[in-house]
Amino acid sequence: MTATSTPAGARAAFRGGLAVPSSGWAPGSTQANLVVLPRDWAWDLLLFAQRNPRPVPLLDVSEPGSWTTPLAPGADLRTDLPRYRVWRDGELVQEPTDVLDLWEADMVAFLIGCSFSFETALLQAGVPVRNIEQGVNVAMYRTDRECRPAGRLSGPLVVSMRPVPAALVATAVQVTARMPQVHGAPVHVGSPADLGIADLDSPDFGDPVTVQPGDVPVFWACGVTPQAALMASRPPLALTHAPGHMFVTDVPDAVYRQL
Amino acid sequence: MTATSTPAGARAAFRGGLAVPSSGWAPGSTQANLVVLPRDWAWDLLLFAQRNPRPVPLLDVSEPGSWTTPLAPGADLRTDLPRYRVWRDGELVQEPTDVLDLWEADMVAFLIGCSFSFETALLQAGVPVRNIEQGVNVAMYRTDRECRPAGRLSGPLVVSMRPVPAALVATAVQVTARMPQVHGAPVHVGSPADLGIADLDSPDFGDPVTVQPGDVPVFWACGVTPQAALMASRPPLALTHAPGHMFVTDVPDAVYRQL
Repeated sequence: MTATSTPAGARAAFRGGLAVPSSGWAPGSTQANLVVLPRDWAWDLLLFAQRNPRPVPLLDVSEPGSWTTPLAPGADLRTDLPRYRVWRDGELVQEPTDVLDLWEADMVAFLIGCSFSFETALLQAGVPVRNIEQGVNVAMYRTDRECRPAGRLSGPLVVSMRPVPAALVATAVQVTARMPQVHGAPVHVGSPADLGIADLDSPDFGDPVTVQPGDVPVFWACGVTPQAALMASRPPLALTHAPGHMFVTDVPDAVYRQL
Repeated sequence: MTATSTPAGARAAFRGGLAVPSSGWAPGSTQANLVVLPRDWAWDLLLFAQRNPRPVPLLDVSEPGSWTTPLAPGADLRTDLPRYRVWRDGELVQEPTDVLDLWEADMVAFLIGCSFSFETALLQAGVPVRNIEQGVNVAMYRTDRECRPAGRLSGPLVVSMRPVPAALVATAVQVTARMPQVHGAPVHVGSPADLGIADLDSPDFGDPVTVQPGDVPVFWACGVTPQAALMASRPPLALTHAPGHMFVTDVPDAVYRQL
């Protein structure tokens, strides 16, 4: 079983216990973030997503108690990710390779779009992705923009930053604007101070990414936004993917590209 | 106070008891469908909307108990529509001009995009809108396509049909595809039988619209879809706008047009 597997092959390997980052597995298939919550808290997240679609683009939401999704028929969301995180009262307590014992009867699974999809689209359009070139995680920052709260969830917009050559900024905007289900167009181009970011070299999450001469920092809404808001509100139990250990769907990336 | 009023002027007139259709009021401002449900049922509708965004494009969802919306600061959703409908166990029981006495502490208000917005855009792009020309309501049909169910909500996709001159079908697709928050691109062009529609002259809702020589029937997802699914599932209490008596927001139609 290799990283160039089919989506079903990748899920079978992860279900068998292989606990590796999913990047590069089943290329061309959309990967998704996972958040699982009791139904009472799921209302808050569903409302937060409706109100903040850029940082929380929902690809699918399960029926309470269900571990299946039409994005990958036959998949089991309790076993088919390479690694999970278990959060109790907002604290990380465990990183298991399945959550069979933790999936309570009213748990609701959220599958949330991931920037892997738009990084592929950028590369295909000839836009270099510096974090991939530099072999590091993308740089992420808390901004001074507040999300619109929903129920118990509130917090700042978190953004990811990718340096883009000035001549390709327009291309980067056009390519990602066509993909609203994976964060869409940038929320900000240039001028980090206007977002309340004091120092690009000190990201709040991920790694610093070197901005090369002629690059402009471009900021996209980031999927860390809902996780940060959620954990700060301390739900009694939440399950998520471990960072980089995503759910591999059967959906081709191209499905999420609009005209 | 006239139909060419501002949005706030229109709402004030309706709040004062004027019970007339809102079509033509505050031109250029987005009008919205209203559905109000107890929170328990609101989960089902929020999930149904996430799964069926074409027929249920959400413009805003209130916090439980709140009658305000950022789409119209200062508005009161309990009084500012020209006429409401009150549904108990799925049956229409009353058509009052306010719902002050009926707004329980956990009621959630859904504001849903309305085809008025895209009909304006079609006219501005030079696409004739036959139902307006003919002075009738749009023709709506139940199809043989099932929506993806959510909780207690299930039912067929309901579509509206507008006859479009063959040379302008592509324009109509392009114009409405840019407005996903008001139903977006057509779901079907031509061939009503493929949707399970036996006779265009016998719509399930609204009025027959004459298809002129050279016109092609074009079908869009329709906001009647969630109302029909909802009433069939008989929630103990639901409040909606009366047909044609919409909520007038402060949001310019242009905001819902993408590039």
